Formats: sequence, C-alpha cells, structure tokens
Amino acid sequence: MSSFRHKHILGIEDLSREDIELILDTAASFKEINTRDIKKVPTLRGKTIINLFYEASTRTRTSFEIAGKRLSADTINISASASSVVKGETLEDTARNIEAMHPDIIVMRHGASGSPHYLAERLDCAIVNAGDGAHEHPSQALLDMMTIREHKGEIDGLTVAIVGDIAHSRVARSNLYGLTKMGAKVRLAAPGTMMPPGIERLGAEVYHDMNEAIRGADVVMMLRIQLERQGNTMLPTLREYARYYGLNPENLQLAKKDALVMHPGPINRGVELSSVVADGPQNVILDQVENGVAVRMALLYLVSGGEKAEE
Amino acid sequence: MSSFRHKHILGIEDLSREDIELILDTAASFKEINTRDIKKVPTLRGKTIINLFYEASTRTRTSFEIAGKRLSADTINISASASSVVKGETLEDTARNIEAMHPDIIVMRHGASGSPHYLAERLDCAIVNAGDGAHEHPSQALLDMMTIREHKGEIDGLTVAIVGDIAHSRVARSNLYGLTKMGAKVRLAAPGTMMPPGIERLGAEVYHDMNEAIRGADVVMMLRIQLERQGNTMLPTLREYARYYGLNPENLQLAKKDALVMHPGPINRGVELSSVVADGPQNVILDQVENGVAVRMALLYLVSGGEKAEE
Amino acid sequence: MSSFRHKHILGIEDLSREDIELILDTAASFKEINTRDIKKVPTLRGKTIINLFYEASTRTRTSFEIAGKRLSADTINISASASSVVKGETLEDTARNIEAMHPDIIVMRHGASGSPHYLAERLDCAIVNAGDGAHEHPSQALLDMMTIREHKGEIDGLTVAIVGDIAHSRVARSNLYGLTKMGAKVRLAAPGTMMPPGIERLGAEVYHDMNEAIRGADVVMMLRIQLERQGNTMLPTLREYARYYGLNPENLQLAKKDALVMHPGPINRGVELSSVVADGPQNVILDQVENGVAVRMALLYLVSGGEKAEE
Repeated sequence: MSSFRHKHILGIEDLSREDIELILDTAASFKEINTRDIKKVPTLRGKTIINLFYEASTRTRTSFEIAGKRLSADTINISASASSVVKGETLEDTARNIEAMHPDIIVMRHGASGSPHYLAERLDCAIVNAGDGAHEHPSQALLDMMTIREHKGEIDGLTVAIVGDIAHSRVARSNLYGLTKMGAKVRLAAPGTMMPPGIERLGAEVYHDMNEAIRGADVVMMLRIQLERQGNTMLPTLREYARYYGLNPENLQLAKKDALVMHPGPINRGVELSSVVADGPQNVILDQVENGVAVRMALLYLVSGGEKAEE
Repeated sequence: MSSFRHKHILGIEDLSREDIELILDTAASFKEINTRDIKKVPTLRGKTIINLFYEASTRTRTSFEIAGKRLSADTINISASASSVVKGETLEDTARNIEAMHPDIIVMRHGASGSPHYLAERLDCAIVNAGDGAHEHPSQALLDMMTIREHKGEIDGLTVAIVGDIAHSRVARSNLYGLTKMGAKVRLAAPGTMMPPGIERLGAEVYHDMNEAIRGADVVMMLRIQLERQGNTMLPTLREYARYYGLNPENLQLAKKDALVMHPGPINRGVELSSVVADGPQNVILDQVENGVAVRMALLYLVSGGEKAEE
Repeated sequence: MSSFRHKHILGIEDLSREDIELILDTAASFKEINTRDIKKVPTLRGKTIINLFYEASTRTRTSFEIAGKRLSADTINISASASSVVKGETLEDTARNIEAMHPDIIVMRHGASGSPHYLAERLDCAIVNAGDGAHEHPSQALLDMMTIREHKGEIDGLTVAIVGDIAHSRVARSNLYGLTKMGAKVRLAAPGTMMPPGIERLGAEVYHDMNEAIRGADVVMMLRIQLERQGNTMLPTLREYARYYGLNPENLQLAKKDALVMHPGPINRGVELSSVVADGPQNVILDQVENGVAVRMALLYLVSGGEKAEE
C-alpha cells in the first residue's frame, strides 16, 4: 500500500486520484471488520479522537464514533450547544484548547465554509472535515464513490447526475470534485435559484431540466431539501419541487436500466424521492451508510500515520 | 444454562415464566461483577450497542450504558434532540440507517407504544425496548422481579399492590404481565381517571381504595406521578393525590410487617411516598437501581447470543 | 510515594501542602503519557467514572473524560439538561441512584456551593468537585499550581496577582487557598463590587488598583468575565472594565519581566486580556490546559486508591 501524504482531510479538492484510490482501497479492506462477530481491531488503540460538532448531526457523528471505537481509539464528543462557543470564545481558541489536551485527530463539523482549513493552518493535530458550511463534506463523497465503485466496478467513464439544491450542498461540491477526478462525467440539475453560477468551470454539465440530466445516467444522486430551514409556507412550493425535481418511477426510467439511486440522507420521502424509488431495487442508500463507517475508519487510520499506527 | 430463544426484548408479554427465570438467573450471576474492584468482563468485547433515546432519561440510559461498558461492548448514545427526527425522517428510515452501521443491539426508548415492535419486524439487529409510550418497560419489570425474588426468595404466591397512575404507566403494565406469569397475585389501585378500563382481564384485581389494595400485601409498588406533565394549577390536586394515593407510615402498616416498598424513581417525595417511607427500613428502592444494571447486563448478553458471545 | 489520605477531592481548603505536593508530583509523572504515541495505561481499567455536570462545561468535562479514558476507566457523562433534575428529584436522591450503580468516582459540577460536600457526607463513592457555585474549583487551582511550579521551579516565595471578579470566582478562591498553603503571597485586584468583603482574612492582600497589584508580581492570573450572564447593555461597562482591569502590554510591564500570564479560559479577548498579551511570550494558558489533563489523571488515580489501583 502506498503511503498517504496528507496530514488532514479537508476536502476532496485537495486530493489526487491516487489519494482517493488509496482511501477507497483502505476502506474496502476495513469494511469486513464491521460484519465480524467481534467488530474491533487494535489499530488505533491509545489514540484520542475528538468529534467537535458545531452543527447537529446524528448519522455523521455516529458513523465517525463507531469508526473510531472499532479501531479501538478513545472517542470524545463535543457538541456546540454545550461548548464554549456560547461563552464568546473564538473558534481558534476553542480548538487550541482542545489541542492542548493532545488529541490525535479532531473531526469537525462547522457551519462556516473553510473553518477546518483555517484551523489546519494553526494547529498541529490532524483535522478531518465532517462538513463545513456549503463547502465540502469529503467523507460523504468518498463513501459515495466507494458505493459506486462497488456496484459499477469502476468510476471512470460513468455518467453521474446530481439533482437538487446544488448551491447549498457540500455533498454535491465534494462529489463533483471527486467524481471528475475519478474520470466520471458529472451532470448537475437544479432550479435556477439553486444552481451556483459558474459551476460548469469545475467540470460539470449544467441542466435545468432534470429529465435531461438523468437521461442515460449510470448514477442518479438526489440531494436533500433542507425542510428544517423552510417555513410551512414552503409547502406548495415543495409539491412543485417534488414534481419537477423529485425522482419517481417514471423519470427514473430515463436513466440506464441498472442506474444506481443514491441519497445522502435523511430522506424526505415524497419530496426528493418517491417512496417506491427510495425502497426500490436500484437504491443503494443503505450501502452508502454502511460504507460510511468503512471510509471513516480508513480516514482515521490514514491521518494517524497509516501503517505506522499499527506497530 | 438453558438457551434463550428470543432475538429481541420487546415486552414482558412475550416472555414465558422460563424466559423470565433465565433472565433473573443470568442477572444474579452478573450482579457480583458490579461490586468487584475491576468491574469489567470481556463478554461483549467487539459488540456495538446503540442507545437510541427519543425521550429524555438519565437512569435508564445510564444503567444500560454502564451494563454495556462493564461487558466491554462499545456503547454509542443517540438522543432525539440531536437526531434526524427533526429533519423529517421516518422512524424506520432512521433505524435502518443505524442498522446499516452494523450495531449488534439497539436499545430504544420512544414515546409511541409499539415502536420497538414495529422496528423489530423490519430490522435484523436485536432490539431491546427501554420503554415505549404507556405500553411496556420490560427491563424495569425484570429488575423489580429480581429485587422481589432476592428479598422474598420467590415470587410465586406473593401479593403485590401497584398504586398510582396505572393507565399511563408502562412500569405497571410490564410488572402486571411479569408478576402474574411468576405466580403472584397483582392488585392495582388508582383513582378512576388513572385506571384503564378492562385491565382486570389481564389478571389484575382492581381497587379504588388504596388501603384495601395494600392490606396484607407482600410488596407495595408505588408509581411515579409525572409532575413535569402537569401545570402548577395541579398542586391542590397533588395534595389530594398524596392524601388518598400516597404511601405513608400509617397506611403502610396495613401491608404485611415485612412488606417491601418499591418505586421506579425518580421519587416525588411527599407525593407518592412520604420521606419517612422512602428512607424507611422496608424500602428497597436502591436495590432496584442496583439490580437494574445486572438485569440489563443479562439482557444485552442474552440477545447477543448468550454463551456463544463468550467464545 | 507517600499515600493519599483523602477519599474525596472537595476543595483545596481541605488539602495540606503535602497533599498538594503529592498531587502535583503524581500529575507530573502522568503528564508524559499524554504525549506518547499510545496514550493509554491500564491503571484504572474496570473503574467506572460518572461525570455529573449540572452546569454546561466543555473544557472541564472533556479534560476529565480524557483523563479517565487514558487511564482506561469507563467514563459516563450525565448532563443536567437530560437529567432527572427536571423531574423534581432531590440532588441526594439523584446521587444515591447513581451510586447504586456502583461507580468508583463521581466527578460533579453544580451551581450550588457546597453540594459536593453535602453528597460526600451521604455517599460511599469518591467525589471529585469539578466546580461548585462560587465556592471551589480544586482541579483548576491544582493545574494552575502545576503550571507555576513547572515554569518557576517552586511556588514558595512567589507573588501572584489574581485580577477580576474575585467575588464570583471559584477559581480565585481555590487558588487563594492553594497558593498561600504553598508559600506564595497572593494579591487580589477587583472593582469594589467584585471583591468579597473580608477576603483578606484568608491571607490575601486586597487591591482596587490593578496596577498596584501586578507591580513586581511573578504571576498575573486573570479571571474570566462571564459575558453570558450580562446583557448587551453591559458593553459600555465592559469597555471600562477592560480599561481598568484588563491586562495589556503596557500594564504587564509593571510585573516582573518573566512574569507568567495565566487565564482559566475561555478568554474574552479584548476584555480581560488584550490579544497581544493572550498570544504573547509570557502566556502559559495552553500549558494550563495541558496540565489539566495530567492533574485530573492524578486526582482520579489518587481517590481510586493510588498504588493499590494498579495491582
């Protein structure tokens, strides 16, 4: 296994195709641990991992916590509501304080784009970005790529349609970086208000008609509409959204017969995905979740020094 | 030790007398671990236990967490406030997502009666009900039965009076199922508004006069009045409640001299129990809490496959 | 190593100079573990530590949690918001319930002064005070003394100026007890409304002019202004506070050239400390945080029985 040359995992933008392949290969080798009777290896014994979450998250925090524990690391959760943020401390001071307790890795989620990068320049310990604003969510894109690779053999040459609120989606952005690096063609579909201007410069094809975007695609990746950020007055619009940008058994037929249906969760059934599609034979949504633990094990392992950590 | 034939622990209603005896015997054998200098055995090493709590709970969650850790399992807490529920995800989707991370056991508390049963039909991993609405709270009834058995030698033939808000009490319901299966006679006492119609069909004797219910009883089990669900305007009524349905040194004399006083906690002193009784020689309330850890160790062990898990 | 004769750590007031030296020596011997590649020793394997926090805290709870985990103890967090307090249970009942689960140590923070002492009289397990109201915060004072000793060689004979809201500061009170026992001269500086009357009887010199207090001092310890307890209308006053009781490059020159600048965190930059001072060469603020983990490891170790615990 070649060695990993990154101290932090800040975004897919920073990774090369070789880096991504090394992560996915490492994740594939860890995946089997999660189905053993005894789901624990001593790889990161004696390492301290801090999950520093400034935004609520169940699945990402739980996935990182399980990944750390199965590698025998000590994991400590810090959530914003209980944290010193309310006491007026700067992000850098909070992080430096945590660092003074000698964690090996800080896994962080923060509402401000670029905050993990800001800290990575200032701290000595490894930082893994678990989502920064509308910027990147690298572990999500990696688990998505792992899932596509498992089902399709390779990513190179595939056509992937990403549909939804592209402008506010760190999932879309990280996948766009990753999938194009891996040789896929990426199509983005969104209403005009949800499509960031100039995004085609990152290598995407831009569509406003969802049907055109998914026609002939190998993968249809639906993004989540963040209902919790909308008022109830949004509901008539939601119905319209579902009609024009929701995936259902009819428009799914435009994609390839064996196209994968993906979603980062949590799903709004009847909005982005009809229940028939969410539960249908083409969906690989729970594979994504399962691979999430393996990818995060790989990331924690690689930023801890990889093979060295096992000695 | 005979083998345990249940995959899940959903309620006492599903368990036979033999099942209950196996659980109590297993708990008795685990109890001693909790008083050792080194309170840890490797029994569930490498198992992942998720505590999924949709209702706030200190003692039940803590008790399950300690039980899991003393058996060397990895325990992960998910609380509703931080969870995807707020994001509009269905319970089944949340649970399937958690399951995709390959936990061995999901311990769940939920406000909706039947929710653990609903998930048990849909998921592959073991589910332990830590309280579902006003339906069942099986680990509570098991720790109550363990405590009664410890103090009385056996449950068969005893008379147990349960007093309080029977209608809304999962503790009462689980104990009614369990105690009658174990051969005890169960008397229920409550004001008319707190007594579910038809409950006598489950084998209980129904009383509206608390004094009649506890007369000659071997065990007096007081239920908690949920003050936090009442407004302050309830206070005059509370005083009346305490007068007619509270246990005090006077009415306790109606029970057998060596009758046990039990309460699931937390206690409202001066309401269900006078402080003299709560701290008196007949109370076994802290024994209940202590046995709770042992019972939960037994449940986690048995649904993990029992002896197989130790190999 | 001489043996530790205290069952609990309730406050510095209860400790002798020899006790403090034993704790600091033990902490110094543990400190190196935190910089190892494998930061874990089996010292407290099989011990259960409950962090019972009735006030929000990130750094203290995290520091105790890391300390426990690096000594291989099982750590369980209970926070007030999720606890039975809201259900009307008394503090003693909550604590007795927790104790019935056989923890070895309860680390507690509570808003009421004296609450850990109250419980220590009633419970059998060890209690470590992580802050009680405006009374004591012993682990903070110990980490402060450890930091001073590291940098100055010994505490005896030093002059330490403590500046800020002395009246509401458990940090100030614990340091006053500890530093005077260790032979330091302690000067306190605060506006009149923030200076408790009669504090000089505890051995302090009282100043209202901050400049006089820090003149010639070996250590300047700045206290935190609790912004979160003030309204926005406080801002003009805050500016005045910073002007008369804030540390900046000018007034710091009054102290000795090699004076240490300390702060318990989180810092309000521009209020208690100018950013230049907070980041300047004399500040040892992150050393304090680092030593906090070592001191807490020592406390958990010593109340667990010290050497016996290692067998």
